[in-house]
Amino acid sequence: MRFISVLMGSKSDYEIMKEAVKVLEKFQIPYELIITSAHRTPERTHDYVKNAEKRGAQVFICGAGMAAHLAGVVASLTTRPVIGVPMPSGMMDGLDALLSTVQMPGGMPVATLAVGKAGAKNAAYLALQILANSDDELKAKLEEDRIAQAKKVELDSKEVEVRLD
Amino acid sequence: MRFISVLMGSKSDYEIMKEAVKVLEKFQIPYELIITSAHRTPERTHDYVKNAEKRGAQVFICGAGMAAHLAGVVASLTTRPVIGVPMPSGMMDGLDALLSTVQMPGGMPVATLAVGKAGAKNAAYLALQILANSDDELKAKLEEDRIAQAKKVELDSKEVEVRLD
Amino acid sequence: MRFISVLMGSKSDYEIMKEAVKVLEKFQIPYELIITSAHRTPERTHDYVKNAEKRGAQVFICGAGMAAHLAGVVASLTTRPVIGVPMPSGMMDGLDALLSTVQMPGGMPVATLAVGKAGAKNAAYLALQILANSDDELKAKLEEDRIAQAKKVELDSKEVEVRLD
Amino acid sequence: MRFISVLMGSKSDYEIMKEAVKVLEKFQIPYELIITSAHRTPERTHDYVKNAEKRGAQVFICGAGMAAHLAGVVASLTTRPVIGVPMPSGMMDGLDALLSTVQMPGGMPVATLAVGKAGAKNAAYLALQILANSDDELKAKLEEDRIAQAKKVELDSKEVEVRLD
Amino acid sequence: MRFISVLMGSKSDYEIMKEAVKVLEKFQIPYELIITSAHRTPERTHDYVKNAEKRGAQVFICGAGMAAHLAGVVASLTTRPVIGVPMPSGMMDGLDALLSTVQMPGGMPVATLAVGKAGAKNAAYLALQILANSDDELKAKLEEDRIAQAKKVELDSKEVEVRLD
Amino acid sequence: MRFISVLMGSKSDYEIMKEAVKVLEKFQIPYELIITSAHRTPERTHDYVKNAEKRGAQVFICGAGMAAHLAGVVASLTTRPVIGVPMPSGMMDGLDALLSTVQMPGGMPVATLAVGKAGAKNAAYLALQILANSDDELKAKLEEDRIAQAKKVELDSKEVEVRLD
Amino acid sequence: MRFISVLMGSKSDYEIMKEAVKVLEKFQIPYELIITSAHRTPERTHDYVKNAEKRGAQVFICGAGMAAHLAGVVASLTTRPVIGVPMPSGMMDGLDALLSTVQMPGGMPVATLAVGKAGAKNAAYLALQILANSDDELKAKLEEDRIAQAKKVELDSKEVEVRLD
Amino acid sequence: MRFISVLMGSKSDYEIMKEAVKVLEKFQIPYELIITSAHRTPERTHDYVKNAEKRGAQVFICGAGMAAHLAGVVASLTTRPVIGVPMPSGMMDGLDALLSTVQMPGGMPVATLAVGKAGAKNAAYLALQILANSDDELKAKLEEDRIAQAKKVELDSKEVEVRLD
Repeated sequence: MRFISVLMGSKSDYEIMKEAVKVLEKFQIPYELIITSAHRTPERTHDYVKNAEKRGAQVFICGAGMAAHLAGVVASLTTRPVIGVPMPSGMMDGLDALLSTVQMPGGMPVATLAVGKAGAKNAAYLALQILANSDDELKAKLEEDRIAQAKKVELDSKEVEVRLD
Repeated sequence: MRFISVLMGSKSDYEIMKEAVKVLEKFQIPYELIITSAHRTPERTHDYVKNAEKRGAQVFICGAGMAAHLAGVVASLTTRPVIGVPMPSGMMDGLDALLSTVQMPGGMPVATLAVGKAGAKNAAYLALQILANSDDELKAKLEEDRIAQAKKVELDSKEVEVRLD
Repeated sequence: MRFISVLMGSKSDYEIMKEAVKVLEKFQIPYELIITSAHRTPERTHDYVKNAEKRGAQVFICGAGMAAHLAGVVASLTTRPVIGVPMPSGMMDGLDALLSTVQMPGGMPVATLAVGKAGAKNAAYLALQILANSDDELKAKLEEDRIAQAKKVELDSKEVEVRLD
Repeated sequence: MRFISVLMGSKSDYEIMKEAVKVLEKFQIPYELIITSAHRTPERTHDYVKNAEKRGAQVFICGAGMAAHLAGVVASLTTRPVIGVPMPSGMMDGLDALLSTVQMPGGMPVATLAVGKAGAKNAAYLALQILANSDDELKAKLEEDRIAQAKKVELDSKEVEVRLD
Repeated sequence: MRFISVLMGSKSDYEIMKEAVKVLEKFQIPYELIITSAHRTPERTHDYVKNAEKRGAQVFICGAGMAAHLAGVVASLTTRPVIGVPMPSGMMDGLDALLSTVQMPGGMPVATLAVGKAGAKNAAYLALQILANSDDELKAKLEEDRIAQAKKVELDSKEVEVRLD
Repeated sequence: MRFISVLMGSKSDYEIMKEAVKVLEKFQIPYELIITSAHRTPERTHDYVKNAEKRGAQVFICGAGMAAHLAGVVASLTTRPVIGVPMPSGMMDGLDALLSTVQMPGGMPVATLAVGKAGAKNAAYLALQILANSDDELKAKLEEDRIAQAKKVELDSKEVEVRLD
Repeated sequence: MRFISVLMGSKSDYEIMKEAVKVLEKFQIPYELIITSAHRTPERTHDYVKNAEKRGAQVFICGAGMAAHLAGVVASLTTRPVIGVPMPSGMMDGLDALLSTVQMPGGMPVATLAVGKAGAKNAAYLALQILANSDDELKAKLEEDRIAQAKKVELDSKEVEVRLD
Repeated sequence: MRFISVLMGSKSDYEIMKEAVKVLEKFQIPYELIITSAHRTPERTHDYVKNAEKRGAQVFICGAGMAAHLAGVVASLTTRPVIGVPMPSGMMDGLDALLSTVQMPGGMPVATLAVGKAGAKNAAYLALQILANSDDELKAKLEEDRIAQAKKVELDSKEVEVRLD
């Protein structure tokens, strides 16, 4: 079964990574979610990623803060797309985690998104876009979602708009 | 035909974005490459992206510096995965472009990579990983490439290694 | 009719952009205000700017945070002066939005002001100064306002001043 | 006579501020250019600005680095629009000068542009846009310039473009 | 009469600059304190500084935030030592004000201290040290103060100390 | 007797440095703890370090913020390993203290850890690792601690895990 | 045999890490040196560290740049002290690598030193200090080295000193 | 004899600190200059400062980079004014040294100037201003110097000035 795998380095990341889960559930995409640490449970991380890829994981979404090595470690274990969500838990409000996540060596990319909830939400959207490359139904749903986003802006505007004439 | 589309905001970005092209050519993946500016040629950008998606573009790789709006504009025009490569042309050695690229609004992700050549190279690798989700032959090639990367490290080490015993 | 057009990328920017509106109302300058997103409603943005310029918009004031592309997109659609107000909603307390707003390509300036409320207030003042270049009455009002500002400092000082002799 | 006044704080800023001059000359707009320092020649600065405004200065373009007080001092002496160009001469490659220029007190804006040559060039464009608000011929020239910018992008692209089909 | 002059750019700086005043009062040094703005009341600033120097001001302590021009403006009006205290009111928690204060042109120093209350307190101490260069009684008081500081550390330590043997 | 010496520059650092103490107590390692300031009590610092080394101090853990000189001063007084814990009390959330602590001259290292409580905790762990180089029992305890850390991750994960199949 | 193990993530780090080697050779301490990558050769890294610890590695010195995960990965594989040297190869001149190296999770410290050659040199000194905790001869050598450092300063001073009287 | 004492932490700082010496020589003020390190020669530093104060040192100018502790250490040894000049030798082009120098504990100020040559030059000017508080002849020279600075600006301007009228 094709699914998306969501990993996070510590329980404290869950509040943020739930934003990714909400999107996956809204679009009814199967997913797994586990806590596993690049440093504290390196073998658990290794075994989970290797096994998940075999069972059908198409994309790995990894949330980590501080040294923020999780996404990089996962990227070293699979050639499936790996998406990194930097947590704001370290210094510099997560800019440190962002740079730690995005600056991977050549040939081993981590697709990096914004720090925190905004990034977690978009990580799920990016995963959906990747799946949609071979799933026209999902592609159509993503296009509908765009129209809904635009409508939302227009409705929001109505509440405060000032128009001359 | 499925292909990858490489866009850049200015001629001065070409030197860096060539790193992406080299990877695509090494893996023999069809691609297009154009210069189009989010600000100077908004219509050209709009028309190209809409048309390219129809003709089979699976992934858009966008290189831009300074205000670095190109990847975001492309993301607003398609639901295909959009990959952003920040150029080091602005202040802060490209950290500005990185933040401008990665901090997209919810529901409209840009998969962001490192600033400059390292990012351009990995942008191509990420695009290949995305294609490989429905192309087992390409997946196999990516796995071989990993083995070659590892061999390279071992060979490099041989040149300087000091071992006791 | 000559007027000033105030745009913002999201409802959450309204609290800050109200500072600009207050100044415009104090000086009784006609204005319009809408929410429109560079990414979520690119066509709405395009149509509004083109139409507003025709109807007499003299200056566009744009508030946006995160990737902060709105002012740049508006600048690409008009040759009227465009003023950018970076929102503090992203990382680095809005420094990211500031750099994203200010670093426009050559020939397409965005007049950038400080992040947040201070910037929104000054955006309106800058727009008034631009209008005053061909409106002597408004010029006179701005000069009176300066005198009032100076008086305010003197009054504030009175409350805490310590003078010898 | 209506003209644009270009000020800079030190001779070493001239190389950068020439970019503004080039644009003004290309569009054949009368301008003045002087070196005057906020700190070393406060009276000269005061007298020049007061006098220039009377003689018809419509916009002041001020280049300054390090503590970068020149634009702010000029803004305190006139209600004409003041445009600040931060010089890269201080620490942080001019980010310090940018923040020193842009963060003016309420009611006394400095329209700030990018650091260095890109900012100097756009400072002139912004000044032209302001003049064009009451000069339709200049407005038309600015619109032609935009078309030329777009053509330039297309020509640049031709040199490197790769198109499938 | 020899005295120390304390200036601040806005009423909101008073809470912080009071730390300087407390030290001056503790050491019973005559001082003046006024609010005057580099931008809003340039003439008031000019007149006050010129007059205060004549009346015996030995050192000027200037607190300012945001663009933080006050200390620089005062330094341009006197050759007495000028001490700058950056306020944390702008972006980057006052780092912007610190750089704006410290980076003065050659020949016109501003002795800069830390941002906020710690800086305000030390500004007064520095002013006292300067006075003490020609006031042996004050010098002796400053040396006693150092001994008191050291005693305080030892007493603080007693509360938490853990000693073996 | 072999012990670990914990120093901090001010009483306000105690809340953070307690994290180091907790670890030392958990592993039942003898330690001393004093407050002593690089600037306010230079002689006390000098005498304590010289004496402590003679009495058996194996490692010095130093917490300091702001200018953060304490660890450096201690390093200049001993050739025992010195561990620095930057306090978040200065600007930039402690990044300043981190750079002040870590950038020692050649030949006089300070082993630097993260800012704040995370760093204080790890400072104690690093001290234990150093002691364990000649204490197999402690080495075994540290290895058990690692296993406990891994178990904790697995238990945390159980609370939120989502597994397919 | 007790020895120090020096690891680096890529051949390009060798030029910098040689500074560590020079110190180890000067003090005639046995060492090993290999290139191994956290991402490209995770198994090689794992096997080397586990085996080296068994063979007598007392301290691991790890140089890595960009995402800079190597020291963290090594720390997750051993309870011996791990010393991290951030390389200046990434953005922000290595500040990114510094933060990525130093911000480890609780219970898994990496003793971090300055970026680049200064850090590499001090990494070796720190390793020597750790060994010296149970090697009095080495301790004595380190103390002599301190005296030599002090003499060097005095000799350097002689070349430029200006003394009155 | 009253004199100014210039200290620097390492021979490599001499090139920059010479800027201070040049100013002192131009104004014919007696000075001493030595190299002494906060870390490598703490006793030499201690003895020199204590002795210099007794012999008539009025102001201490201290240049240091990296951890930049020298000015702070000197400040802890004297109640004479201490001026710090951060060297650009560390990370962040000296911003690190600036923050390490300026953020002293309460009651122990270091008057901080800009990083590098500009700061070294102004350190000497500040020292002169302090001496001039009790030396009317020197005060007069400083005022003449200001007039010369202003003349220089006017002459520089002549070379590039463009005037209408």
